[in-house]
Amino acid sequence: MELLDKLKWRYAAKAMNGQQVAQEDLDKILEAAILAPTSSGLQPFEILVVTNPELKEKIRAIGWNQSVITDCSHLLVFAAWDTYTAERINTMFDLTNTVRGFKNEGWENYRQMLLNMYPQRDPEVNFQHAARQAYIAFSQAITAAAFLGVDSTPIEGFDPEALDEILNLKQKGLRSCVILPLGYRDAEKDWLVNLVKVRKSKEDLVTFIQ
Amino acid sequence: MELLDKLKWRYAAKAMNGQQVAQEDLDKILEAAILAPTSSGLQPFEILVVTNPELKEKIRAIGWNQSVITDCSHLLVFAAWDTYTAERINTMFDLTNTVRGFKNEGWENYRQMLLNMYPQRDPEVNFQHAARQAYIAFSQAITAAAFLGVDSTPIEGFDPEALDEILNLKQKGLRSCVILPLGYRDAEKDWLVNLVKVRKSKEDLVTFIQ
Repeated sequence: MELLDKLKWRYAAKAMNGQQVAQEDLDKILEAAILAPTSSGLQPFEILVVTNPELKEKIRAIGWNQSVITDCSHLLVFAAWDTYTAERINTMFDLTNTVRGFKNEGWENYRQMLLNMYPQRDPEVNFQHAARQAYIAFSQAITAAAFLGVDSTPIEGFDPEALDEILNLKQKGLRSCVILPLGYRDAEKDWLVNLVKVRKSKEDLVTFIQ
Repeated sequence: MELLDKLKWRYAAKAMNGQQVAQEDLDKILEAAILAPTSSGLQPFEILVVTNPELKEKIRAIGWNQSVITDCSHLLVFAAWDTYTAERINTMFDLTNTVRGFKNEGWENYRQMLLNMYPQRDPEVNFQHAARQAYIAFSQAITAAAFLGVDSTPIEGFDPEALDEILNLKQKGLRSCVILPLGYRDAEKDWLVNLVKVRKSKEDLVTFIQ
């Protein structure tokens, strides 16, 4: 399957060459992230696409000085909602009704159930839940990039609170979770590019219960 | 791009017809999950593939009685490590050294850093971190299924502690995060199959910082 070939091709590039990702490809990667399924369809995150060189330098400084942060073409920042609010839930349910052109009792009961549950919950629990949804989108972005032959580097190694500060995320009710530089590998400078991909075997990772 | 077409085709099937997913396709879906990138390459999760009818019934009973849980072909359960231990970390670093055939000082320093950090941390923090990695794999499984024309239903709506009990996950140091029935949609019984997919616009979800 072509998809598996692409997933084998991809790796976390440790050096990028500064080459730009075409707008058309960037759009497809973002579209894949937007198409990702999320719990109750809430899409509880935003994606920031940083290309500003000064900002990339600042982020590199709080990102273990990883060169791909500045040498990438586009730096995607996945930031999850800091909590679920009634407004955020209603926005998505209202959008669904608008797009589909009708109201549905079952759907409205489901909205009410979420409204009765999520906003009252500990914000940290809500953020952790929202972050998982962001990771589904993050994963689809990685896969889409690989599909297009665009390298990416999944990075958790940064100071999220410092990044939130740099990008004013707190004011937007967001918390950064994970970042994804997009670009093209610099094979001569990348220590990882020629190393074998290591994964546990299916026997180690998967149990069949028949 | 073919991948985007597949992602548009997919939806969370609400009814499945019991048709079996071929072993060859199941293997590809599992391989995609195994190929998913994870933090430090630790792959801190396991996947259980449930086909046993009695177990599926039991899981349906603690999964909001969702019919796809029993009517699917294979029920994938993604279970994350309940914490990071030195043994788990060492197993993965040792595997990497074995597969690559050499030891590397930088890599060994990195192992030591993780050993000095993860096992001492609050298990709940570790589990939340591991769960995010499981979601990356979960997302790649969904995408791979779509790529093969296999339907899937991402489900968080179940009692994770009850599922852990049913599958004896606690004894294995695992906690269930999310489940994914795989199979084929039953279009006649599925209220969702003909409804328009609703997603926020790129303008609402993405901010460019240039």
